[in-house]
Amino acid sequence: MAERGRGWARAVRGLLLDVSGVLYDSGADGGVPIAGSVEAVRRIKASGLKLQLCTNETQATRESFVRKLRALGFDIAVAQVTAPAPAACHLLRERGLRPHLLVHDDLVPEFAEIDKTNPNCVVLGDAAENFTYANLNEAFRLLIGMEKPVLISLGKGRYYKETDGLKLDVGAYMKALEYACDIQAEVVGKPSKRFFESALAELGVPPEQAIMIGDDIVNDVGGAQQCGMRALQVRTGKFRPSDENHPAVKPDAYVNNLAEAVDIILQEL
Amino acid sequence: MAERGRGWARAVRGLLLDVSGVLYDSGADGGVPIAGSVEAVRRIKASGLKLQLCTNETQATRESFVRKLRALGFDIAVAQVTAPAPAACHLLRERGLRPHLLVHDDLVPEFAEIDKTNPNCVVLGDAAENFTYANLNEAFRLLIGMEKPVLISLGKGRYYKETDGLKLDVGAYMKALEYACDIQAEVVGKPSKRFFESALAELGVPPEQAIMIGDDIVNDVGGAQQCGMRALQVRTGKFRPSDENHPAVKPDAYVNNLAEAVDIILQEL
Repeated sequence: MAERGRGWARAVRGLLLDVSGVLYDSGADGGVPIAGSVEAVRRIKASGLKLQLCTNETQATRESFVRKLRALGFDIAVAQVTAPAPAACHLLRERGLRPHLLVHDDLVPEFAEIDKTNPNCVVLGDAAENFTYANLNEAFRLLIGMEKPVLISLGKGRYYKETDGLKLDVGAYMKALEYACDIQAEVVGKPSKRFFESALAELGVPPEQAIMIGDDIVNDVGGAQQCGMRALQVRTGKFRPSDENHPAVKPDAYVNNLAEAVDIILQEL
Repeated sequence: MAERGRGWARAVRGLLLDVSGVLYDSGADGGVPIAGSVEAVRRIKASGLKLQLCTNETQATRESFVRKLRALGFDIAVAQVTAPAPAACHLLRERGLRPHLLVHDDLVPEFAEIDKTNPNCVVLGDAAENFTYANLNEAFRLLIGMEKPVLISLGKGRYYKETDGLKLDVGAYMKALEYACDIQAEVVGKPSKRFFESALAELGVPPEQAIMIGDDIVNDVGGAQQCGMRALQVRTGKFRPSDENHPAVKPDAYVNNLAEAVDIILQEL
């Protein structure tokens, strides 16, 4: 498919990359780089193209996330990562919200400066092992007890792939709480337009000169296209062949992996 | 409200009663009867009215559920309980389905006679403490791996009240799996029409001569009314004042509790 037409690869000045499933496959063991991706990131940087990672990662602070990526061989700085937790902190401050956190232990430091006494909202991240029956009931009771329940969800992904298999993502738990409380969550993270716009601002490139590359047909590809960007789906990570028949979202191109996308983009520069 | 008009209480031959929140408040300690309910059940039986319990209870076999109710003072027989698990077994046999069970440990014996090798569907009940991150991921992986995922949910309640507080019900977890797999579950239990019809068949009374009494505005009241029955909401259990402004469902009457409903019905006999 990538070979059929390359029009999508022209007039590019910056790339937004999803991380899990594009740079590496995550897992309890820290994960493993996807073949060719370390070299692809190196080539993007050498080419002069601007680069920003746009992730819904909420299992770690940006600092420790970047440490992990660097340990895997990716030459990335903290400022090159757009992630939901800092965006959520901005929103909480803006609206005077005091969150109860149902998030991964390693994400908690991102909220260190936020007042969490007497919560008037729930912030939901990919809590992984913290998605216990007791913790879900606690978040539910807080929400249902609020006059106007506010649920802020760090992403709404359905599932993702780790080295030991597929895992339910935050979106599934968001739906559980939405249904139980008869409310709609506010999503901070992909595919929210506001989130992509802040990633583009950090990239420093207008949408028509940027390409998003991700493995999630809805949250990466669909969300980026809604912002006027081109978007590619890689056939790595959680990509499934049935994605190529998605009823609503059609990527500008499919590529086998990040390395192939970068090959084509650099040839067209 | 119950006092304003009593037309709803005429020409009754049988009662369908929800159990948790109507007869008793459930809890880890076995629960406690709701004031007046033991006596109300005794009076129904003495009056000659037919009586059937119509429950979405899936934390125990009907046998152990009835043992618990009898220990609380309710004079009930196993045949007087219509519950989702036996209905699900009927459906599984009818369609040659082999379930993976994500249910409460105490419900498992209801499925003793069902072939569970090489599962081609998932049956979801109120698994309570079995709603672990690992178990939810396992059910998800089985579903997403099926060519045509079949999810059978024993009810779709949002939440219920136990003596130590509100708990997320099976419906919340159903929504999580539905969203993750992009599928629609088949619900066995209230408010499914087929389930109410089997309860009415066991009651032995046509819908226009039966009244459903429950604490759940949607699953008890709405579901029963869809089958042509009258339905009351009690102000016990998980009843919340905002239920009285429900946008879609309006009970034939509100009553403070089962005892008040029975008082009025027996006066009108």
